[in-house]
Amino acid sequence: MAKKQQGDFFEDYKNEDTALIINDGVEQPPIINPYIKNVFKKKASIPSVEWYMDGIRAEDTTVLSQAITLVESSLPEHRAVAQQIIQRCQEISRSKKSMRIGITGVPGAGKSTFIEAFGSFITSQGHKLAVLAIDPSSEKSKGSILGDKTRMETLCNDPNAFIRPSPSAGSLGGVARKTRETIILCEAAGYDVVFIETVGVGQSETAVHSMSDFFLLLMLSGAGDDLQGIKRGIMEMSDLIAITKADGNNVDKASMARALYSNALHLFPPTESGWIPTAVTSSAVTKEGLPEILSKIEDYFKLVINNGFYDRKRREQSQFWMYESINESLKNMFYENQSIEKLLPEYEEAVLEGKLESFSAAAELIEKYKQTR
Amino acid sequence: MAKKQQGDFFEDYKNEDTALIINDGVEQPPIINPYIKNVFKKKASIPSVEWYMDGIRAEDTTVLSQAITLVESSLPEHRAVAQQIIQRCQEISRSKKSMRIGITGVPGAGKSTFIEAFGSFITSQGHKLAVLAIDPSSEKSKGSILGDKTRMETLCNDPNAFIRPSPSAGSLGGVARKTRETIILCEAAGYDVVFIETVGVGQSETAVHSMSDFFLLLMLSGAGDDLQGIKRGIMEMSDLIAITKADGNNVDKASMARALYSNALHLFPPTESGWIPTAVTSSAVTKEGLPEILSKIEDYFKLVINNGFYDRKRREQSQFWMYESINESLKNMFYENQSIEKLLPEYEEAVLEGKLESFSAAAELIEKYKQTR
Repeated sequence: MAKKQQGDFFEDYKNEDTALIINDGVEQPPIINPYIKNVFKKKASIPSVEWYMDGIRAEDTTVLSQAITLVESSLPEHRAVAQQIIQRCQEISRSKKSMRIGITGVPGAGKSTFIEAFGSFITSQGHKLAVLAIDPSSEKSKGSILGDKTRMETLCNDPNAFIRPSPSAGSLGGVARKTRETIILCEAAGYDVVFIETVGVGQSETAVHSMSDFFLLLMLSGAGDDLQGIKRGIMEMSDLIAITKADGNNVDKASMARALYSNALHLFPPTESGWIPTAVTSSAVTKEGLPEILSKIEDYFKLVINNGFYDRKRREQSQFWMYESINESLKNMFYENQSIEKLLPEYEEAVLEGKLESFSAAAELIEKYKQTR
Repeated sequence: MAKKQQGDFFEDYKNEDTALIINDGVEQPPIINPYIKNVFKKKASIPSVEWYMDGIRAEDTTVLSQAITLVESSLPEHRAVAQQIIQRCQEISRSKKSMRIGITGVPGAGKSTFIEAFGSFITSQGHKLAVLAIDPSSEKSKGSILGDKTRMETLCNDPNAFIRPSPSAGSLGGVARKTRETIILCEAAGYDVVFIETVGVGQSETAVHSMSDFFLLLMLSGAGDDLQGIKRGIMEMSDLIAITKADGNNVDKASMARALYSNALHLFPPTESGWIPTAVTSSAVTKEGLPEILSKIEDYFKLVINNGFYDRKRREQSQFWMYESINESLKNMFYENQSIEKLLPEYEEAVLEGKLESFSAAAELIEKYKQTR
């Protein structure tokens, strides 16, 4: 191994299985303090792919967190290392039959409380649980799951649980990519159950649905007003509806709601998986329903692993995200094009006012775009 | 007016309000026989925009049909004329508060029979009705609505009804564009009610939903197996569910189904329009329920025209289709790129086999694409 120089790490790491950071010409294991802001902006401080992989394989949550931070970074040099880590983790994770569970719910259903209670039950059953989130609004709200984290105290202190707030990227596409890659990293680090939580804003349920195996919807015992916060179409996506807060005076109401939803689910078109969605009641206080939910989830996974739907859906999801990501890049190239940026508002205005038909406007803009290339 | 030569129509039509076809140097009104194949391939036989507009304004169905054929053509010279016609029709149609009604149903619900019966009822109430269809499979099946047409004999002979089979284009995007433009032409020709029927294949319901004001779902009185033919999510898109075949021995079963669906609809999140979806029963034999369906539809339109949702949705749809059309063009440019066409299969394979993560594959393909430009 040639003598290394400070700063030559990056030119070097591709050729070395165990590249190390060089400080003062002395080889040392890299130490990264995530609390030092912008630490990743210094090229020389990025550890090697092998260093990350060793940590991930050893199920070291500090290294896992740092790897996720790298995955979330948009700096090209970070991206290059991140892609190698993802690739390596993918190789580890694909042999495992992990359970990716999407969770959403109506506002007030007590999502964090449910995740805290159900998550603790899951780890008590011998699973290792990662809790991730897709929240495209988290840039503005500075991460609502941070608030959640304080409400998930038990889970935060559970050595078998790993909680990671939503990446705060601008576009849903960006958040989705980072979350999907984070799932792979977590699975490689030994987490066999992954929760992907969504706040139910805009298209985020669809994104979560496209990266989970199982979709759990949390509902309250009332109907009507309670449903104000979720979008139409979500009920028909769900594999299981859990009526939360089924405790105290609410037990009867929750049972009634469970019956109503069960009946409604029967009227829905059948699922592709062959699974028959049902409704259950649950309480984060009495823990009632939690074992039943886990057993439903396990039944689902038995069914879909046996009938091949599990693998098929995972493959379709990979394909989906490849095309989704291509299409998003194509759109970015177009909408960030300088002439298009200038022209778009007037075309949109003309279309909105009915002065120009949608397709003519599109055709003209595409013509202009072609001319700029 | 300068003496015209045979074949110089095309260079000429833009400058003439009333360009005519020149045959043997003699100006004659254009006669197009749609049964002569490829007639539109002869440049000289395209009439002027004004000729089409005169016919459309006069509610001449032969001219309307020819205009739609032009809109459906993919020849650039046809497209140029078609876009002008669409623009002119758009100006006429946007002042009218037409009712665009999307219709889908489970297989066996008797869609054509329902449309025949309900359509005849609608024209008997003084409306003019256009029946269009979105059937992306019609290229293969050579237009299932042609079969429908023979089953819609009364409506076919109804002077106040106009039936047009689905355009047989390859992609759903292409079919959607043509259908949306055809709606505008029909409205300009005096049709105040437009049915857009879908066969329920793939994404076609979403397309129909994105170009109608009201979405009607036809269901049978049974559940479960009957629902095999429709996709999840459609129930939550519907503004009205009609249980068909509520006649003879089926009356009680249909009433029960109506009650079940009504209850289920109450459990859904509220609609953006403020409308409360319900379920009704109907029979094409006894005509039971048809007046109720029309009255529900009229109530809906009263509500949404008054609360502004009608205009807002129309504007959003125009915007949606502009962006949808841009995005489809961007995708076509990418996927038809020669290097991409060659590379794509191996990348897709690598992604499906888990050898390459979706987002890395996408990023590499986009890089290659940029290099070819």
